[in-house]
Amino acid sequence: MFRLPPYLLCLVLIVSCNDKKATPSSQNKVIDLTQHVNPFIGTSKMGHVFPGATTPFGMVQLSPQTHMEVMYDSIGNYNPLTYEYCAGYQYKDSTIIGFSHTNFSGTGHSDLGDFLIMPTTGNLNLEPLRHINGQKGFYSTFSHDKESAEPGYYQVDLDSYGIKAELTASPRVGFHQYTFPNKEQAHIILDMMYNVYHHDQKNVWTFIRVENDSLITGYRQTKGWARTRKVFFALSFSKPFKSYGHKKYDKKGYNGFYRRFEEDKNFPEMAGKDIRAYFDFDVNAGEKIQLKMALSNVSTQGALKNLEAEIAHWNFNQIKNQAKADWNLELSKIKVDMLSKDQLTTFYTALYHTNLSPIIYEDVDGNYRGLDQNIHQSDGFTNYTIFSLWDTYRALHPLFNLTQPQRNNEMIKSMLAHQEQSVHGMLPIWSHYANENWCMIGYHATSIIADAMVKNIGDFDQKQALNASVTTANVDYFEGIGDYKSYKYVPEDKSLSSVSKTLEYAYNDWCIAQMAKQLKQSNTQKSFEERADYYKNVFDASIGFMRPRLSSGEFKTDFDAMDTHGQGFIEGNAWNYGLYVPHDIKQMIELKGGKEQFSLHLDSLFTMEIDDKFIEKTEDITRDGIIGNYVHGNEPGHHIPYLYNWTNDAHKTQARVRMIMDRMYGPTVEGLCGNDDAGQMSAWYIFSALGFYPVTPGSPFYDLGSPLVKEARITLSNGNTITITANNQSENNIYVSEVKWNGKTVNGLQLNHNELTNGGELVFEMSKTPRL
Amino acid sequence: MFRLPPYLLCLVLIVSCNDKKATPSSQNKVIDLTQHVNPFIGTSKMGHVFPGATTPFGMVQLSPQTHMEVMYDSIGNYNPLTYEYCAGYQYKDSTIIGFSHTNFSGTGHSDLGDFLIMPTTGNLNLEPLRHINGQKGFYSTFSHDKESAEPGYYQVDLDSYGIKAELTASPRVGFHQYTFPNKEQAHIILDMMYNVYHHDQKNVWTFIRVENDSLITGYRQTKGWARTRKVFFALSFSKPFKSYGHKKYDKKGYNGFYRRFEEDKNFPEMAGKDIRAYFDFDVNAGEKIQLKMALSNVSTQGALKNLEAEIAHWNFNQIKNQAKADWNLELSKIKVDMLSKDQLTTFYTALYHTNLSPIIYEDVDGNYRGLDQNIHQSDGFTNYTIFSLWDTYRALHPLFNLTQPQRNNEMIKSMLAHQEQSVHGMLPIWSHYANENWCMIGYHATSIIADAMVKNIGDFDQKQALNASVTTANVDYFEGIGDYKSYKYVPEDKSLSSVSKTLEYAYNDWCIAQMAKQLKQSNTQKSFEERADYYKNVFDASIGFMRPRLSSGEFKTDFDAMDTHGQGFIEGNAWNYGLYVPHDIKQMIELKGGKEQFSLHLDSLFTMEIDDKFIEKTEDITRDGIIGNYVHGNEPGHHIPYLYNWTNDAHKTQARVRMIMDRMYGPTVEGLCGNDDAGQMSAWYIFSALGFYPVTPGSPFYDLGSPLVKEARITLSNGNTITITANNQSENNIYVSEVKWNGKTVNGLQLNHNELTNGGELVFEMSKTPRL
Repeated sequence: MFRLPPYLLCLVLIVSCNDKKATPSSQNKVIDLTQHVNPFIGTSKMGHVFPGATTPFGMVQLSPQTHMEVMYDSIGNYNPLTYEYCAGYQYKDSTIIGFSHTNFSGTGHSDLGDFLIMPTTGNLNLEPLRHINGQKGFYSTFSHDKESAEPGYYQVDLDSYGIKAELTASPRVGFHQYTFPNKEQAHIILDMMYNVYHHDQKNVWTFIRVENDSLITGYRQTKGWARTRKVFFALSFSKPFKSYGHKKYDKKGYNGFYRRFEEDKNFPEMAGKDIRAYFDFDVNAGEKIQLKMALSNVSTQGALKNLEAEIAHWNFNQIKNQAKADWNLELSKIKVDMLSKDQLTTFYTALYHTNLSPIIYEDVDGNYRGLDQNIHQSDGFTNYTIFSLWDTYRALHPLFNLTQPQRNNEMIKSMLAHQEQSVHGMLPIWSHYANENWCMIGYHATSIIADAMVKNIGDFDQKQALNASVTTANVDYFEGIGDYKSYKYVPEDKSLSSVSKTLEYAYNDWCIAQMAKQLKQSNTQKSFEERADYYKNVFDASIGFMRPRLSSGEFKTDFDAMDTHGQGFIEGNAWNYGLYVPHDIKQMIELKGGKEQFSLHLDSLFTMEIDDKFIEKTEDITRDGIIGNYVHGNEPGHHIPYLYNWTNDAHKTQARVRMIMDRMYGPTVEGLCGNDDAGQMSAWYIFSALGFYPVTPGSPFYDLGSPLVKEARITLSNGNTITITANNQSENNIYVSEVKWNGKTVNGLQLNHNELTNGGELVFEMSKTPRL
Repeated sequence: MFRLPPYLLCLVLIVSCNDKKATPSSQNKVIDLTQHVNPFIGTSKMGHVFPGATTPFGMVQLSPQTHMEVMYDSIGNYNPLTYEYCAGYQYKDSTIIGFSHTNFSGTGHSDLGDFLIMPTTGNLNLEPLRHINGQKGFYSTFSHDKESAEPGYYQVDLDSYGIKAELTASPRVGFHQYTFPNKEQAHIILDMMYNVYHHDQKNVWTFIRVENDSLITGYRQTKGWARTRKVFFALSFSKPFKSYGHKKYDKKGYNGFYRRFEEDKNFPEMAGKDIRAYFDFDVNAGEKIQLKMALSNVSTQGALKNLEAEIAHWNFNQIKNQAKADWNLELSKIKVDMLSKDQLTTFYTALYHTNLSPIIYEDVDGNYRGLDQNIHQSDGFTNYTIFSLWDTYRALHPLFNLTQPQRNNEMIKSMLAHQEQSVHGMLPIWSHYANENWCMIGYHATSIIADAMVKNIGDFDQKQALNASVTTANVDYFEGIGDYKSYKYVPEDKSLSSVSKTLEYAYNDWCIAQMAKQLKQSNTQKSFEERADYYKNVFDASIGFMRPRLSSGEFKTDFDAMDTHGQGFIEGNAWNYGLYVPHDIKQMIELKGGKEQFSLHLDSLFTMEIDDKFIEKTEDITRDGIIGNYVHGNEPGHHIPYLYNWTNDAHKTQARVRMIMDRMYGPTVEGLCGNDDAGQMSAWYIFSALGFYPVTPGSPFYDLGSPLVKEARITLSNGNTITITANNQSENNIYVSEVKWNGKTVNGLQLNHNELTNGGELVFEMSKTPRL
């Protein structure tokens, strides 16, 4: 359940499906769009999103942790349940162990969870889950009816203690407010050991200094998904603590010469691999204790600077209101009217989810930690991190080119800085916090760059970007690239997932060719256009499927086009992932036997029965996210529903996208059918709801679908607006009979981004029956 | 054995005891004093010094490691033999496992050993001690007749491989030169796991980047004596390596998502807790491979800057000659003529040992890592670290006030910066590499500051220094200071080693009073003068000894004045450590029953039989370093031989100091009778050989002893010189019959530093029989 604080209802003007005053046309009104965001959507099952408090793209993403499972039990057995906890929170849980300042949004793997804070009362207890003598740990029970969330704010009653916990944030500072019920002993626990996943297996080192009776600083280094990750903090308390201490949990470790202090209590330096610190207070009934935790990826000095620059006071509501205003600024870039309040909630929550990553990754003074672990200064841009690129190049970054061109420009500059700092000379693959985690395949930064170039986004150095892309595409030891260049495909016996790799490299190479074309570097263009064709080399015409090929030139025998494992694909099979040729769809359809045959393939894909064994084996695919053999809960097929446009059955694209929006998204905690993947799943929804989708990032074209909005107004950063109207919009009128752009009928099934950004009116005529 | 390279003999003009031309009077000649330095002196037994290559106070101290023992065996038993290896090298050994770039000189505990480099040939073997299948490790055998050392240069034949290894250094860069005997496969091993002590128990994290085919960068963090220590490097090879790789020894550890690279070989990023890397070369017979390893405590960027600034070329001999020139600059500050070549060697090696720490601790751009782990900029000074203050305030820093006033000024500024960065607000106790290790007792930085102030040294902020001292002396949780202030002594039942603490705090408080006096802060002066008297409160007049007192006011029963354990003293007993009242010697002698009684106490001290049990129990005391119950091998009694001056038997001081110089120091590998303690033991020798000693640092006075030099010329930084002449000097003429300063007979037994630094002639008349 998603509860709005009652006072909010009085403050805001409501955008509703029935209130004409609040439709997109009333653009100058102060409209609180955050009311339509329910941060709990997707917090159940595999959405991997968090309900906590953050600003748009904020470095601090402060959220409750209900993660009670350990990834490996005491005898080393893997606990598959932990995968649910990528963002630290599962809606089904009834206990909270604290509030962490960093959380991935929707990713397919986890890390972070830095600096867990938990307020408690009574006897001090430093064990989170269970006390040594069998008592409960410091966790608290909670219930969803005493919990609520909105953009930039989260609150919950910690029932075990009667403490009301409230969280808000500025970009680099988490702001906590704890209201205590009684006059009693209170403790604020700072758990430096907590990590999302692997509670006590990721820490490398932690360090705390008690600077004075209300300020502490410190850092930790972890070796999780990011192998060499450092985060620094400055934590300020609104009230001096009366005493403090820590417990060290390091199983083994030499810590120097004999010491002659009692270091556990009131000793202002703490260091070790695994420690939990606590701060004691006497509180009165109803007393509030506030905490401000500033992060930095540079130093504790940096964290202190961030703290002073962003929140110099103790006015919790001011920061909460500022966060809300920041969110409204972002959300108001697309004002929509829809068929129902539920759809509004789904839409704006999706839009919210597309503004959670990448995150700002620099201090207020522009210093940030680079991939080489040195401190760099961002020169003329804001540095970002968390690039889940295999996911987000598809629709999230294209969406940014509509709604966040300045940020996308800065993200590209961040990727170019990453490339300069990379010892491999590579653009990011999947990177976060000054580390490359190498997750998934392809070099899709090239797609993001090409897409920005063809859409005239930003002022990044395009030649540098092309060079960086070419260098990346020639790191021969990366994932079979050397073999790909020699054999003109990745041989399965040389490198697994060889078909997926071949297809994605070919697409990425096409993207590089687009850059080269734009920069009139014809040799580079030509050579990458050649590479862009290599996808054909893994197509087995004898069976009509993409199929793994060996270095001998033969196709792999014992091939099963349904199987998602060991058949040359990663997280997919030849039926779905084999349709991945976004840059040469027409030719791919020819290979598959032409339009009619291909349309039948798509029909089968969406309707076929699929054996459980092909679902269960794959981490990122669940029943919730599939329709037939089409997998919406994972990314590689996100363009597939739009491929009917390339046959004679475009109306089936319209039907499918409406069906997917209806079945795979919703206004409930289960409203995401798979990992949101740093916003990609939500970005798919935003585009589709507006009526078009970037099937081929790196081209300026969108493929038309079927809008879900009744009306929409996109305010562009160039001052222009795009209004979208779906006449006769209804649940049944899912087919598009005509599309007009600025009064002229659109011929064909594509829109050009560069025409849209000149501003204008896009009108869809909706109909119950197919026409286009 | 100490061998001079033959070419050196041709180059240098020799200072010898027989060559009048080279005596101190020939001041303008180019004199190579490094010939008198034998870096092997003290490398046997407990001297804890190293023979490797370094510049004066250099950050890089590059030395062979023969440390084959582990501190704890596989079942956790402590191996006491490791204590010999504080500087990584023991002369008795016949195997070398590599060359490390950081080493303590003479300390009583260990750490460091960063970045062990070892060249090998043949099959690659990454195990240092033994190969998994029983073969030998990568260590090499060596013999001392194919090994030599001089200031700034070390060479050895690595017999197992036939490789000639040569080392030299600039302040921040170690320069290796390896000559290979045959055309073959060669390897340079970079062992990131090696630590002096605890081979594999200190690492927290290590990180390596292969920047290109001849440059690598990286860092490591350790949790040894310095709990949170980070050192960065840039390593440049004179020849590209043809391949490289690493092995990870981490026993356990989660390192992220699945990886699809072969990361062990030719993959340019390596990270983990315990790794060893290697670099492969094809070499021809007689081929040299050179390496330059630059250190930084800030970042790999800093290390690269240091590398470029200090050694931009590959001319090994140029750096070697520069190091020699730097050493001659320091050594020539005291030019001496002595009775024998051996004495010259002993003297100049001692002088060499007083120039090995504290070390420079900042990059060429002035950036350094502070105690708060943040990066600071030294503003108007060079930052230093390795402050073994309980040892070095006694004679090393007073010696600096003669020979290194500018550096001592900078060391004080470094200590003040430390105090500003300390979360305790404390001046350093025993600090190194941005960490406080809290070793030993007292707050003797106050002594160094007071000594500099009364001797008009430097331009540090004296008021800040006084405030920092007062703050330090009031950190109540430090080692019983709170109780010391309440009870006016440290009660033994509250804090162990209570008598040692009370005595040293009282002396330190007197030092603070001297600062306050100089700054005319009479209230502070008065209150610290009161505290300076607290030593009296642990004197038990009924037995005539300092004795531990309880919080009840009673003295501890079951007291044994000979026992070195549990009797209120640390590394000493009431007989010797109980004479520690350097600031109020007259009164202390009164307490002890007056001059005659006290002289008898000293006679007994130097002649009494002492049971082995009192020696064996104490780590820093061995038979080699004691005379009766006087312990020269450890510091707390270093002033004692001079205390006869305060009785009517000053001639006994003269006899004792000559005896100690003769018996406790020598020109052999066993020439140090105990830990050199960062130069204190050697500084005692330098002063005593010159004929005077700073019994009370913080006062400008030196106590006269009996010089060992025939002649000496001290060149002061103010341009003045002090010449010392010992007329009738001989092995038997150990008594001083008259002392003249600038022609005037010195009355009494003291010299005033501030008169000496005006320059002049100090003449001792030596005699076979006592007179003074």
